[in-house]
Amino acid sequence: MTASAYETCIQACSNCALVCEMCASACLREEDVKMMARCIQLDRDCADLCALAAVLMTRESPLAKEFCALCARVCRACGEECGKHDMDHCQACAKACLSCAEECERMAA
Amino acid sequence: MTASAYETCIQACSNCALVCEMCASACLREEDVKMMARCIQLDRDCADLCALAAVLMTRESPLAKEFCALCARVCRACGEECGKHDMDHCQACAKACLSCAEECERMAA
Amino acid sequence: MTASAYETCIQACSNCALVCEMCASACLREEDVKMMARCIQLDRDCADLCALAAVLMTRESPLAKEFCALCARVCRACGEECGKHDMDHCQACAKACLSCAEECERMAA
Amino acid sequence: MTASAYETCIQACSNCALVCEMCASACLREEDVKMMARCIQLDRDCADLCALAAVLMTRESPLAKEFCALCARVCRACGEECGKHDMDHCQACAKACLSCAEECERMAA
Repeated sequence: MTASAYETCIQACSNCALVCEMCASACLREEDVKMMARCIQLDRDCADLCALAAVLMTRESPLAKEFCALCARVCRACGEECGKHDMDHCQACAKACLSCAEECERMAA
Repeated sequence: MTASAYETCIQACSNCALVCEMCASACLREEDVKMMARCIQLDRDCADLCALAAVLMTRESPLAKEFCALCARVCRACGEECGKHDMDHCQACAKACLSCAEECERMAA
Repeated sequence: MTASAYETCIQACSNCALVCEMCASACLREEDVKMMARCIQLDRDCADLCALAAVLMTRESPLAKEFCALCARVCRACGEECGKHDMDHCQACAKACLSCAEECERMAA
Repeated sequence: MTASAYETCIQACSNCALVCEMCASACLREEDVKMMARCIQLDRDCADLCALAAVLMTRESPLAKEFCALCARVCRACGEECGKHDMDHCQACAKACLSCAEECERMAA
Protein backbone atom coordinates (compact mmCIF):
# COMPACT_ATOMS: atom_id res chain seq x y z
CA MET A 1 0.00 0.00 0.00
CA THR A 2 1.46 3.37 -0.96
CA ALA A 3 1.30 6.62 0.98
CA SER A 4 -1.27 7.87 -1.52
CA ALA A 5 -3.55 4.92 -0.68
CA TYR A 6 -3.29 6.03 2.92
CA GLU A 7 -3.96 9.67 2.03
CA THR A 8 -7.41 10.07 3.62
CA CYS A 9 -6.28 8.34 6.79
CA ILE A 10 -3.08 10.42 6.98
CA GLN A 11 -5.14 13.60 6.78
CA ALA A 12 -7.62 12.35 9.40
CA CYS A 13 -4.81 11.44 11.82
CA SER A 14 -2.90 14.63 11.21
CA ASN A 15 -6.03 16.70 11.80
CA CYS A 16 -7.13 14.69 14.86
CA ALA A 17 -3.70 15.11 16.48
CA LEU A 18 -3.97 18.90 16.34
CA VAL A 19 -7.64 19.01 17.33
CA CYS A 20 -6.75 16.95 20.44
CA GLU A 21 -3.91 19.36 21.30
CA MET A 22 -6.31 22.27 20.95
CA CYS A 23 -8.97 20.52 23.06
CA ALA A 24 -6.48 19.79 25.86
CA SER A 25 -5.33 23.42 25.94
CA ALA A 26 -8.92 24.69 25.92
CA CYS A 27 -9.89 22.23 28.69
CA LEU A 28 -7.08 23.66 30.83
CA ARG A 29 -8.64 27.12 30.47
CA GLU A 30 -12.13 25.95 31.56
CA GLU A 31 -13.61 27.09 34.88
CA ASP A 32 -14.03 23.50 36.11
CA VAL A 33 -10.74 21.90 35.06
CA LYS A 34 -11.23 18.91 37.33
CA MET A 35 -14.23 17.78 35.31
CA MET A 36 -11.99 17.83 32.21
CA ALA A 37 -9.06 15.87 33.68
CA ARG A 38 -9.87 12.59 31.96
CA CYS A 39 -10.51 14.42 28.70
CA ILE A 40 -7.10 16.12 28.89
CA GLN A 41 -5.33 12.85 29.66
CA LEU A 42 -6.97 11.08 26.70
CA ASP A 43 -6.33 14.08 24.44
CA ARG A 44 -2.62 13.82 25.17
CA ASP A 45 -2.40 10.14 24.28
CA CYS A 46 -4.68 10.50 21.27
CA ALA A 47 -2.70 13.46 19.93
CA ASP A 48 0.58 11.57 20.20
CA LEU A 49 -0.67 8.34 18.67
CA CYS A 50 -2.45 10.10 15.81
CA ALA A 51 0.65 12.16 15.03
CA LEU A 52 2.83 9.05 14.90
CA ALA A 53 0.23 7.13 12.87
CA ALA A 54 0.33 9.88 10.23
CA VAL A 55 4.14 9.72 10.17
CA LEU A 56 4.28 5.92 9.87
CA MET A 57 1.77 5.89 7.01
CA THR A 58 3.66 8.68 5.25
CA ARG A 59 6.84 6.60 5.54
CA GLU A 60 4.94 3.55 4.24
CA SER A 61 6.17 1.74 7.34
CA PRO A 62 5.42 -2.00 7.60
CA LEU A 63 4.02 -1.19 11.07
CA ALA A 64 1.45 1.30 9.78
CA LYS A 65 -1.57 -1.02 9.69
CA GLU A 66 -1.13 -2.40 13.18
CA PHE A 67 -0.37 1.02 14.52
CA CYS A 68 -3.63 2.29 13.00
CA ALA A 69 -5.53 -0.49 14.79
CA LEU A 70 -4.18 0.74 18.13
CA CYS A 71 -4.73 4.36 17.16
CA ALA A 72 -8.36 3.65 16.33
CA ARG A 73 -8.91 2.43 19.87
CA VAL A 74 -7.53 5.53 21.55
CA CYS A 75 -9.53 7.68 19.11
CA ARG A 76 -12.74 5.85 20.13
CA ALA A 77 -11.95 6.30 23.85
CA CYS A 78 -11.06 9.97 23.44
CA GLY A 79 -14.05 10.67 21.20
CA GLU A 80 -16.44 9.10 23.68
CA GLU A 81 -15.06 11.12 26.59
CA CYS A 82 -15.09 14.39 24.62
CA GLY A 83 -18.62 13.65 23.46
CA LYS A 84 -19.84 13.90 27.09
CA HIS A 85 -18.90 17.59 27.32
CA ASP A 86 -20.91 20.39 25.69
CA MET A 87 -18.08 22.82 24.97
CA ASP A 88 -17.38 23.49 21.31
CA HIS A 89 -13.77 22.31 21.58
CA CYS A 90 -14.89 18.97 23.04
CA GLN A 91 -17.63 18.48 20.47
CA ALA A 92 -15.20 19.31 17.65
CA CYS A 93 -12.68 16.90 19.15
CA ALA A 94 -15.25 14.12 19.49
CA LYS A 95 -16.09 14.53 15.82
CA ALA A 96 -12.45 14.50 14.70
CA CYS A 97 -11.71 11.46 16.89
CA LEU A 98 -14.62 9.38 15.66
CA SER A 99 -13.90 10.23 12.04
CA CYS A 100 -10.24 9.34 12.58
CA ALA A 101 -11.21 6.08 14.31
CA GLU A 102 -13.24 5.07 11.26
CA GLU A 103 -10.40 5.86 8.86
CA CYS A 104 -7.91 3.96 11.02
CA GLU A 105 -10.21 0.96 11.30
CA ARG A 106 -10.64 0.92 7.52
CA MET A 107 -6.86 1.04 7.05
CA ALA A 108 -6.21 -1.63 9.68
CA ALA A 109 -8.75 -4.02 8.14
CA MET B 1 -2.52 35.66 19.02
CA THR B 2 -5.07 32.84 18.84
CA ALA B 3 -4.68 29.47 17.18
CA SER B 4 -6.96 30.68 14.40
CA ALA B 5 -4.57 33.58 13.65
CA TYR B 6 -1.88 30.94 13.29
CA GLU B 7 -4.07 28.77 11.08
CA THR B 8 -2.21 29.16 7.76
CA CYS B 9 1.13 28.61 9.45
CA ILE B 10 -0.13 25.56 11.37
CA GLN B 11 -1.26 24.00 8.10
CA ALA B 12 2.03 24.83 6.37
CA CYS B 13 4.06 23.27 9.21
CA SER B 14 1.84 20.23 9.48
CA ASN B 15 2.08 19.66 5.74
CA CYS B 16 5.83 20.30 5.59
CA ALA B 17 6.47 17.80 8.41
CA LEU B 18 4.82 15.00 6.45
CA VAL B 19 6.33 15.99 3.09
CA CYS B 20 9.78 15.84 4.73
CA GLU B 21 9.04 12.36 6.15
CA MET B 22 7.96 11.24 2.71
CA CYS B 23 11.03 12.76 1.06
CA ALA B 24 13.38 11.03 3.53
CA SER B 25 11.74 7.66 2.90
CA ALA B 26 11.84 8.16 -0.87
CA CYS B 27 15.51 9.25 -0.71
CA LEU B 28 16.31 5.98 1.09
CA ARG B 29 14.83 4.07 -1.87
CA GLU B 30 16.93 5.95 -4.48
CA GLU B 31 19.69 4.17 -6.40
CA ASP B 32 22.35 6.61 -5.19
CA VAL B 33 21.48 6.98 -1.50
CA LYS B 34 24.84 8.52 -0.65
CA MET B 35 24.04 11.57 -2.75
CA MET B 36 20.86 12.00 -0.68
CA ALA B 37 22.44 11.65 2.77
CA ARG B 38 22.43 15.35 3.60
CA CYS B 39 18.89 15.67 2.29
CA ILE B 40 17.73 12.82 4.55
CA GLN B 41 19.45 14.31 7.60
CA LEU B 42 17.85 17.71 7.00
CA ASP B 43 14.47 16.12 6.29
CA ARG B 44 14.55 14.43 9.70
CA ASP B 45 15.25 17.65 11.59
CA CYS B 46 12.85 19.69 9.48
CA ALA B 47 10.05 17.14 9.94
CA ASP B 48 10.49 17.13 13.71
CA LEU B 49 10.69 20.89 14.11
CA CYS B 50 7.73 21.54 11.81
CA ALA B 51 5.62 18.98 13.66
CA LEU B 52 6.39 20.58 17.01
CA ALA B 53 5.87 24.09 15.62
CA ALA B 54 2.35 23.08 14.55
CA VAL B 55 1.68 21.64 18.02
CA LEU B 56 2.97 24.72 19.87
CA MET B 57 0.90 27.09 17.74
CA THR B 58 -2.17 24.91 18.21
CA ARG B 59 -1.64 25.07 21.98
CA GLU B 60 -1.17 28.87 21.71
CA SER B 61 2.11 28.38 23.53
CA PRO B 62 4.04 31.52 24.55
CA LEU B 63 7.04 29.88 22.83
CA ALA B 64 5.33 29.58 19.46
CA LYS B 65 6.75 32.71 17.81
CA GLU B 66 10.36 32.04 18.73
CA PHE B 67 9.99 28.41 17.81
CA CYS B 68 8.71 29.46 14.39
CA ALA B 69 11.80 31.63 13.89
CA LEU B 70 14.02 28.58 14.44
CA CYS B 71 11.74 26.40 12.34
CA ALA B 72 11.96 28.85 9.45
CA ARG B 73 15.72 28.44 9.40
CA VAL B 74 15.68 24.66 9.18
CA CYS B 75 12.98 24.90 6.50
CA ARG B 76 15.22 27.21 4.44
CA ALA B 77 18.19 24.86 4.83
CA CYS B 78 16.16 21.77 3.97
CA GLY B 79 14.41 23.49 1.07
CA GLU B 80 17.71 24.61 -0.44
CA GLU B 81 19.19 21.11 -0.21
CA CYS B 82 16.10 19.44 -1.64
CA GLY B 83 16.00 22.01 -4.43
CA LYS B 84 19.34 20.69 -5.73
CA HIS B 85 17.85 17.29 -6.56
CA ASP B 86 15.61 16.67 -9.57
CA MET B 87 13.45 13.89 -8.13
CA ASP B 88 9.78 14.72 -7.72
CA HIS B 89 9.86 14.03 -3.98
CA CYS B 90 12.75 16.47 -3.50
CA GLN B 91 11.16 19.15 -5.65
CA ALA B 92 7.86 18.78 -3.78
CA CYS B 93 9.73 18.94 -0.48
CA ALA B 94 11.67 22.04 -1.53
CA LYS B 95 8.39 23.73 -2.36
CA ALA B 96 6.74 22.75 0.95
CA CYS B 97 9.82 23.84 2.91
CA LEU B 98 10.12 27.24 1.30
CA SER B 99 6.42 27.92 1.66
CA CYS B 100 6.60 26.85 5.32
CA ALA B 101 9.68 29.03 5.88
CA GLU B 102 7.76 32.06 4.61
CA GLU B 103 4.78 31.34 6.87
CA CYS B 104 7.04 30.83 9.87
CA GLU B 105 8.97 34.02 9.17
CA ARG B 106 5.71 35.94 8.93
CA MET B 107 4.55 34.50 12.27
CA ALA B 108 7.89 35.13 13.97
CA ALA B 109 7.96 38.76 12.85
CA MET C 1 30.88 19.05 18.91
CA THR C 2 30.15 15.33 19.02
CA ALA C 3 27.20 13.56 20.62
CA SER C 4 29.52 12.43 23.41
CA ALA C 5 30.38 16.06 24.23
CA TYR C 6 26.64 16.61 24.57
CA GLU C 7 26.21 13.51 26.73
CA THR C 8 25.37 15.18 30.07
CA CYS C 9 22.94 17.55 28.40
CA ILE C 10 21.28 14.73 26.42
CA GLN C 11 20.69 12.83 29.65
CA ALA C 12 19.36 15.94 31.43
CA CYS C 13 16.93 16.67 28.58
CA SER C 14 15.85 13.07 28.24
CA ASN C 15 15.20 12.84 31.98
CA CYS C 16 13.45 16.23 32.17
CA ALA C 17 11.09 15.29 29.32
CA LEU C 18 9.84 12.24 31.21
CA VAL C 19 9.69 13.98 34.59
CA CYS C 20 7.50 16.68 32.98
CA GLU C 21 5.19 14.01 31.51
CA MET C 22 4.92 12.41 34.93
CA CYS C 23 4.25 15.76 36.62
CA ALA C 24 1.49 16.64 34.14
CA SER C 25 -0.22 13.29 34.70
CA ALA C 26 0.09 13.61 38.48
CA CYS C 27 -1.26 17.19 38.37
CA LEU C 28 -4.34 15.90 36.52
CA ARG C 29 -5.00 13.52 39.41
CA GLU C 30 -4.78 16.28 42.08
CA GLU C 31 -7.89 17.36 44.00
CA ASP C 32 -7.53 20.98 42.85
CA VAL C 33 -6.68 20.58 39.17
CA LYS C 34 -7.47 24.21 38.36
CA MET C 35 -4.57 25.36 40.51
CA MET C 36 -2.29 23.12 38.43
CA ALA C 37 -3.50 24.23 34.99
CA ARG C 38 -0.54 26.48 34.23
CA CYS C 39 1.84 23.81 35.50
CA ILE C 40 0.30 21.20 33.17
CA GLN C 41 0.47 23.53 30.18
CA LEU C 42 4.15 24.30 30.82
CA ASP C 43 4.90 20.62 31.46
CA ARG C 44 3.55 19.73 28.03
CA ASP C 45 5.71 22.26 26.21
CA CYS C 46 8.75 21.53 28.33
CA ALA C 47 8.42 17.76 27.80
CA ASP C 48 8.18 18.16 24.03
CA LEU C 49 11.05 20.61 23.71
CA CYS C 50 13.34 18.59 25.98
CA ALA C 51 12.58 15.39 24.08
CA LEU C 52 13.41 17.03 20.75
CA ALA C 53 16.53 18.71 22.20
CA ALA C 54 17.84 15.27 23.22
CA VAL C 55 17.13 13.92 19.74
CA LEU C 56 18.82 16.85 17.93
CA MET C 57 21.95 16.59 20.09
CA THR C 58 22.04 12.84 19.54
CA ARG C 59 21.89 13.43 15.78
CA GLU C 60 24.64 16.07 16.12
CA SER C 61 22.29 18.43 14.32
CA PRO C 62 23.62 21.89 13.37
CA LEU C 63 20.50 23.25 15.09
CA ALA C 64 21.27 21.65 18.45
CA LYS C 65 22.88 24.65 20.15
CA GLU C 66 20.20 27.14 19.27
CA PHE C 67 17.52 24.65 20.12
CA CYS C 68 19.11 24.19 23.55
CA ALA C 69 18.95 27.96 24.11
CA LEU C 70 15.20 27.91 23.53
CA CYS C 71 14.81 24.73 25.56
CA ALA C 72 16.61 26.34 28.51
CA ARG C 73 14.01 29.09 28.57
CA VAL C 74 11.02 26.78 28.73
CA CYS C 75 12.82 24.71 31.39
CA ARG C 76 13.30 27.87 33.51
CA ALA C 77 9.63 28.84 33.12
CA CYS C 78 8.39 25.32 33.90
CA GLY C 79 10.78 24.91 36.84
CA GLU C 80 9.67 28.21 38.36
CA GLU C 81 5.99 27.30 38.09
CA CYS C 82 6.52 23.77 39.48
CA GLY C 83 8.60 25.21 42.31
CA LYS C 84 5.51 27.06 43.60
CA HIS C 85 3.69 23.80 44.37
CA ASP C 86 4.52 21.59 47.35
CA MET C 87 3.63 18.22 45.87
CA ASP C 88 6.50 15.80 45.41
CA HIS C 89 5.94 15.51 41.66
CA CYS C 90 6.13 19.29 41.25
CA GLN C 91 9.22 19.61 43.43
CA ALA C 92 10.93 16.77 41.53
CA CYS C 93 9.95 18.42 38.26
CA ALA C 94 11.26 21.82 39.37
CA LYS C 95 14.58 20.21 40.20
CA ALA C 96 14.81 18.34 36.87
CA CYS C 97 13.84 21.49 34.95
CA LEU C 98 16.37 23.77 36.61
CA SER C 99 19.14 21.22 36.23
CA CYS C 100 18.20 20.78 32.56
CA ALA C 101 18.11 24.56 32.06
CA GLU C 102 21.68 24.83 33.36
CA GLU C 103 22.90 22.06 31.07
CA CYS C 104 21.15 23.59 28.07
CA GLU C 105 22.53 27.05 28.83
CA ARG C 106 26.03 25.61 29.08
CA MET C 107 25.61 23.86 25.72
CA ALA C 108 24.12 26.92 24.05
CA ALA C 109 26.97 29.15 25.23
CA MET D 1 0.71 -0.74 37.35
CA THR D 2 2.49 2.45 38.36
CA ALA D 3 5.22 4.30 36.49
CA SER D 4 7.73 2.97 39.00
CA ALA D 5 6.76 -0.62 38.11
CA TYR D 6 7.53 0.33 34.52
CA GLU D 7 10.83 1.95 35.46
CA THR D 8 13.25 -0.53 33.85
CA CYS D 9 11.22 -0.61 30.66
CA ILE D 10 10.94 3.19 30.53
CA GLN D 11 14.71 3.46 30.76
CA ALA D 12 15.24 0.76 28.11
CA CYS D 13 12.84 2.50 25.70
CA SER D 14 14.24 5.94 26.38
CA ASN D 15 17.77 4.69 25.80
CA CYS D 16 16.85 2.67 22.69
CA ALA D 17 15.14 5.69 21.11
CA LEU D 18 18.32 7.75 21.32
CA VAL D 19 20.63 4.90 20.28
CA CYS D 20 18.47 4.42 17.16
CA GLU D 21 18.69 8.15 16.36
CA MET D 22 22.45 7.98 16.74
CA CYS D 23 22.69 4.85 14.58
CA ALA D 24 20.61 6.44 11.80
CA SER D 25 22.81 9.55 11.78
CA ALA D 26 26.00 7.45 11.80
CA CYS D 27 24.64 5.24 8.98
CA LEU D 28 24.09 8.38 6.88
CA ARG D 29 27.80 9.22 7.28
CA GLU D 30 28.99 5.74 6.15
CA GLU D 31 30.80 5.31 2.84
CA ASP D 32 28.21 2.83 1.54
CA VAL D 33 24.94 4.46 2.60
CA LYS D 34 22.87 2.31 0.26
CA MET D 35 23.77 -0.80 2.25
CA MET D 36 22.43 0.96 5.37
CA ALA D 37 19.13 2.16 3.89
CA ARG D 38 16.97 -0.51 5.54
CA CYS D 39 18.79 0.04 8.82
CA ILE D 40 18.09 3.78 8.69
CA GLN D 41 14.42 3.24 7.88
CA LEU D 42 13.99 0.81 10.79
CA ASP D 43 15.97 3.09 13.12
CA ARG D 44 13.52 5.91 12.40
CA ASP D 45 10.45 3.84 13.24
CA CYS D 46 12.09 2.19 16.23
CA ALA D 47 13.25 5.54 17.64
CA ASP D 48 9.77 7.03 17.36
CA LEU D 49 7.94 4.05 18.83
CA CYS D 50 10.38 3.65 21.71
CA ALA D 51 10.15 7.35 22.55
CA LEU D 52 6.36 7.22 22.64
CA ALA D 53 6.38 3.95 24.62
CA ALA D 54 8.49 5.64 27.32
CA VAL D 55 6.08 8.58 27.40
CA LEU D 56 2.95 6.40 27.63
CA MET D 57 4.41 4.33 30.47
CA THR D 58 5.47 7.49 32.28
CA ARG D 59 1.91 8.79 31.98
CA GLU D 60 0.60 5.41 33.22
CA SER D 61 -1.56 5.36 30.10
CA PRO D 62 -4.09 2.50 29.76
CA LEU D 63 -2.56 1.94 26.31
CA ALA D 64 0.95 1.36 27.61
CA LYS D 65 0.93 -2.44 27.63
CA GLU D 66 -0.41 -2.88 24.14
CA PHE D 67 1.88 -0.19 22.86
CA CYS D 68 4.82 -2.05 24.37
CA ALA D 69 3.79 -5.22 22.52
CA LEU D 70 3.97 -3.34 19.22
CA CYS D 71 7.18 -1.60 20.25
CA ALA D 72 8.80 -4.96 21.03
CA ARG D 73 8.19 -6.08 17.46
CA VAL D 74 9.83 -3.07 15.84
CA CYS D 75 12.74 -3.40 18.30
CA ARG D 76 13.22 -7.05 17.22
CA ALA D 77 13.14 -6.09 13.53
CA CYS D 78 15.53 -3.17 14.00
CA GLY D 79 17.87 -5.18 16.24
CA GLU D 80 18.08 -8.00 13.69
CA GLU D 81 18.88 -5.62 10.83
CA CYS D 82 21.48 -3.70 12.86
CA GLY D 83 23.03 -7.00 13.98
CA LYS D 84 23.98 -7.74 10.37
CA HIS D 85 26.35 -4.77 10.20
CA ASP D 86 29.78 -4.72 11.86
CA MET D 87 30.01 -1.01 12.65
CA ASP D 88 30.10 -0.09 16.32
CA HIS D 89 26.98 2.07 16.06
CA CYS D 90 25.01 -0.81 14.52
CA GLN D 91 26.25 -3.34 17.06
CA ALA D 92 25.42 -0.96 19.92
CA CYS D 93 22.00 -0.37 18.40
CA ALA D 94 21.35 -4.09 17.99
CA LYS D 95 22.15 -4.58 21.66
CA ALA D 96 19.91 -1.70 22.81
CA CYS D 97 17.06 -2.90 20.57
CA LEU D 98 17.14 -6.50 21.74
CA SER D 99 17.36 -5.48 25.37
CA CYS D 100 14.44 -3.08 24.86
CA ALA D 101 12.44 -5.79 23.07
CA GLU D 102 12.84 -8.07 26.08
CA GLU D 103 11.73 -5.37 28.51
CA CYS D 104 8.74 -4.49 26.34
CA GLU D 105 7.74 -8.13 25.98
CA ARG D 106 7.92 -8.55 29.74
CA MET D 107 5.73 -5.49 30.27
CA ALA D 108 3.24 -6.53 27.59
CA ALA D 109 2.85 -10.01 29.08
